Amino acid sequence: MTTEAQTSGRRAAAAPRAADVPRAADPVTGAAVKAADRAHVFHSWSAQGLIDPLAVAGADGSYFWDYDGTRYLDFTSGLVYTNIGYQHPKVVAAIQEQAGKLATFAPAFAVEPRSEAARLIAERTPGDLDKIFFTNGGAEAIENAIRMARLHTGRPKVLSAYRSYHGGTATAVNVTGDPRRWPSDNGTSGVVHFWAPFAYRSPFYSSSEAEEGERALRHLADTIAFEGPGTIAAIVLETIPGTAGIMVPPPGYLAGVRELCDRHGIVFVLDEVMTGFGRTGKWFAAEHFGVTPDLLTFAKGVNSGYVPLGGVAISAEIAATFENRPYPGGLTYSGHPLACAAAVATIRVMAEERVVEQAARIGETVLGPGLRELAERHPSVGEVRGTGVFWALDLVRDRATREPLVPYNASGEANAPMAAFAAECKARGLWPFVNMNRTHAVPPCNISEAEAEEGLAALDAALSVADRFTV
Amino acid sequence: MTTEAQTSGRRAAAAPRAADVPRAADPVTGAAVKAADRAHVFHSWSAQGLIDPLAVAGADGSYFWDYDGTRYLDFTSGLVYTNIGYQHPKVVAAIQEQAGKLATFAPAFAVEPRSEAARLIAERTPGDLDKIFFTNGGAEAIENAIRMARLHTGRPKVLSAYRSYHGGTATAVNVTGDPRRWPSDNGTSGVVHFWAPFAYRSPFYSSSEAEEGERALRHLADTIAFEGPGTIAAIVLETIPGTAGIMVPPPGYLAGVRELCDRHGIVFVLDEVMTGFGRTGKWFAAEHFGVTPDLLTFAKGVNSGYVPLGGVAISAEIAATFENRPYPGGLTYSGHPLACAAAVATIRVMAEERVVEQAARIGETVLGPGLRELAERHPSVGEVRGTGVFWALDLVRDRATREPLVPYNASGEANAPMAAFAAECKARGLWPFVNMNRTHAVPPCNISEAEAEEGLAALDAALSVADRFTV
Ligand SMILES: Cc1ncc(COP(=O)(O)O)c(C=O)c1O
Ligand SMILES: Cc1ncc(COP(=O)(O)O)c(C=O)c1O
Repeated sequence: MTTEAQTSGRRAAAAPRAADVPRAADPVTGAAVKAADRAHVFHSWSAQGLIDPLAVAGADGSYFWDYDGTRYLDFTSGLVYTNIGYQHPKVVAAIQEQAGKLATFAPAFAVEPRSEAARLIAERTPGDLDKIFFTNGGAEAIENAIRMARLHTGRPKVLSAYRSYHGGTATAVNVTGDPRRWPSDNGTSGVVHFWAPFAYRSPFYSSSEAEEGERALRHLADTIAFEGPGTIAAIVLETIPGTAGIMVPPPGYLAGVRELCDRHGIVFVLDEVMTGFGRTGKWFAAEHFGVTPDLLTFAKGVNSGYVPLGGVAISAEIAATFENRPYPGGLTYSGHPLACAAAVATIRVMAEERVVEQAARIGETVLGPGLRELAERHPSVGEVRGTGVFWALDLVRDRATREPLVPYNASGEANAPMAAFAAECKARGLWPFVNMNRTHAVPPCNISEAEAEEGLAALDAALSVADRFTV
Repeated sequence: MTTEAQTSGRRAAAAPRAADVPRAADPVTGAAVKAADRAHVFHSWSAQGLIDPLAVAGADGSYFWDYDGTRYLDFTSGLVYTNIGYQHPKVVAAIQEQAGKLATFAPAFAVEPRSEAARLIAERTPGDLDKIFFTNGGAEAIENAIRMARLHTGRPKVLSAYRSYHGGTATAVNVTGDPRRWPSDNGTSGVVHFWAPFAYRSPFYSSSEAEEGERALRHLADTIAFEGPGTIAAIVLETIPGTAGIMVPPPGYLAGVRELCDRHGIVFVLDEVMTGFGRTGKWFAAEHFGVTPDLLTFAKGVNSGYVPLGGVAISAEIAATFENRPYPGGLTYSGHPLACAAAVATIRVMAEERVVEQAARIGETVLGPGLRELAERHPSVGEVRGTGVFWALDLVRDRATREPLVPYNASGEANAPMAAFAAECKARGLWPFVNMNRTHAVPPCNISEAEAEEGLAALDAALSVADRFTV
C-alpha cells in the first residue's frame, strides 16, 4: 500500500526506492552462478547436499562450455531433447520474433502459432492422429493420454512395462517402470506392470529375437487375460524404451500389441516423448514398425526443448468421444504461443535441413558401425543396440554371464565403475549419458560425422577404464 | 533413409525436396487460424464440437484484439496470469536476449538465469522458504509439494478444501475441490476434503466473519482429529481461493491452520499459483495474514506466463530432509533458462515499476469502491469481495436468500443468465472472467485507473442484463 501520488499509466516510471530494486549478482562469474544455485535451486532427482552442478556458460550446436572455457561434446542432447542441437539460429530467431509479437495467450483462443504447430505435428504423426492436445512437457502428456483412455473406455486399469520412464507427476510416475516410481507408489494407482521384450536380458529365457518377440506377446496376452480385458483402459509403451536402455522391440512385437488392443477394445498409447521428432531416424519411431497407436505422446524433440512443450496426438475415434462431452483436463499454458512458435520453426528446420534423414544416416554410417567396432575391442561392452542417434552400450562385468558392470540401481561404492567411466569421458571432453550399467550415445540428430567420430574416440578411451572392472 | 551423398555439416543446406518442406497457411487470416485450430487443436476442459474459439491477432498491455480489429479490455489476465499485462517491452527484450544466449539447458547444471530467478524468488517468499524447485506450471508444483510433504512426514493423507482448484495432473486434480475433479477421481487418492471459511455462504451457519473463522477452524480441528493427525502429511490451501470465488479468509483463520499444523506435525502448503506475484496487492497473499507455510507453490505471475514456469518454495526444514537423501521427483524442463530469464525480468519490472503497489492502490481506490458502488445499484450482485486486482462479484437471483444466479455447475439453458451477462460484457468491449454464478475482475496488476474505470462501466451495463434474471 502506498499513499504517494502516482500516475496511473501502465509503465509510468515512478521513481523506485533503491532498496526495492533487485540487482543482478554482478558481474556474472561461474562461482557466483554456482553459489546462487547451491543457495537457492532445489534440483530434480538429487540429494541436495551431495551434488556439485557444473556452471555452464554457453552452448552451440553439439557443444557446451563452462566458465573456465572447458568445452564438452554433448552426447546427451541435454536430457535427450536438443534434437537440433543448441542455439539453432532459425529457431532462436523464431522465438525472438514470436516474443515480440505475442509471447503468451490463454488456451481457449485460436492463435496462429498454436494452430500452425498443431497442423505441422498432425501432418507428421502416423495414421489419423490429427488432433493435438498441448501440454508443457512429457509427464503432463502421459497424464492426459491416460485420462483420455480411461474416459474413452470407462475402464480403470492401465498396463505398462517394467524398464520404462514416463514422467514425474502422479499417474506418469505410476506407469513408470524404474526405481523412480517407488517413493511415489502406494499400490492404489490401477497400474499393472508387465515385461516388454529385451532379447539381451530376456525375461522369457528366449534364445533369439524372434522367440523374444513371440514370448513377450504371449506374456502380455496372458497378463491381459488374467487382469481381465474388460478392466483395462490402456496399454502404455515407449515405442523404443529410452532411459531404460534403448531396447528396440523385435519385429512384429508392436504390431502384436496393436492387435491385442484391437481385440480387447484397449487404447494403445505410444510414448514418443524421447523417440519422437527424428531421434530414431524417423519423425516417429512407430514408423519403423508400421504401427499406429490410438494416442501418441510427445515433448522434447518437438521444439528441441527451446521452450517447454509437450502433447498428445489423438485418433479420430478418441477425439469423437469428446466432441459433445467436455474433456475434463487442462492447464494454463496449453498450446503456449511461444512454445508453439518454437515447434513450428523446429519442424520447418528439420524438414528443410533434412535432420531426420541425417539422424538415420549418422546412425547407419558412423554411430552404429563405430560403436560395434568399440564393442569388439572392449570386453566391458556386452551389447550395442539402437538406431538413428539413439544408441545404448550395455556394460558388463562378464560377457559370458552378462552380469551388469554395476548392480541395478547402484549408488556410492557399488557404482564406482560407472563413475570412473563417466569421469574419463569428461576428461576427454565428452559429456556422457549414464544410467545404471549403461551409457547412451544420444547426440543431436544433426551432429556432424566429425563430431560423432570425436565422441567415439572419447568413448574408446573411457571404455578402457570400464574394461578394468571386468572379470 | 537416404542414399544421396550429403555433406556432414550441421546446417549444410542440402537441397530439400519441395514436398518435404512445410508451408505456412499463407497469408495469415483469422479464418485460416480458426480453421487450423478447429481441425487440429484439442482444447482444455471443452467439448470439442461445441466450442467456437475467437481467433486473436494481437495483444498489448490490458487489451487484445481479433482479426477484425475488435479490441477487448482483458479483465481475465488470460487465466489470471498476465500480471504485468501483455507484451511488456522489458520482459520481451529479456526473453529475446536469453533466447540468443542460451535458450535451454538441462536441469542438473547451474545456469545464470536459473540461479538468479531462484535468488529473486527466495528473496520475496515469506520466512525461510529459500530453496526453489522449478516446474513448468502450477499442477506440477502441487504434485511436487505433496510428494515432498508425504516423504518428509512419512504419512499418506492430504487434506484440502472444497471450493478450490489446484491443477489438472492426477494428484493436483485430486486435491482440487470443484467438479473438474470428479472424472479423474476414483476415491483412492488419499485426499480428504474439508470446508474452508466462506462467510457469505457459510457451511457453518455463522453470522459474522469472526464466527466463520472460528467455526471453520473448529471444523478443521475436528476433521484432523477424526482422520487421525498421525495419518496426515499435508494441508493444502489456496491462500485466497481463486477460481472458486476469491473468498478472503477471516482474520486469524490461516494463523489457526498454521497452529494446527505445528501441533500435529503436518506440512502446511499454501498454493499461491494464482495469488502470488502481486495479484492481491502483496508479493504473496500470505503476507496479508502474517503466515509462513512450509511449502509455497507458485506459477502464473512469476513471469506473467510469458514462458511456462512454476515451482515450489521450500522451507529449510523440508529442504534438509532431502540433503542426503535423493528427492525422487523431477522433469526435463525444471528451471528452464528461457522461463527463468522471463521471471528475472518480470520480478525486476515489478519492483522498478512498483507493480505490486499499483495493484494494491487500484484495488483500494478504483476497483473496490467501484464494484461496491455497482453492487448498490444492481440487485443481481449478492456480494463483492477481494483485494488488489483480485475481485469477485457473487451474482444472485435473490439477495434475500442468496440463491445463486445459476445453479452450481450449470450448463446449457440453466446457465443462460451468466451467458447473457458474458455476451453483454463482450458487446461492450470487455472480456470477462466467468465461473458458475460469479464474475471476477482480475485485470493485470498494472492496469491504469482509466482502464479500470472503462471495465467498471462495461460491467455496469452487463449487470443490468443479469438484473433481469433476479426475482
Ligand atoms: C519416454 C518419456 N516419457 C515421458 C517423459 C517425461 O517428460 P517430462 O520430463 O517432460 O515430464 C520422459 C522424460 O525423460 C521420457 O523419456
Ligand atoms: C491456485 C491454482 N493452483 C494451481 C493451478 C494449476 O496451474 P497450471 O494450470 O499451470 O497447471 C491453478 C490454475 O489455474 C490455480 O489457480
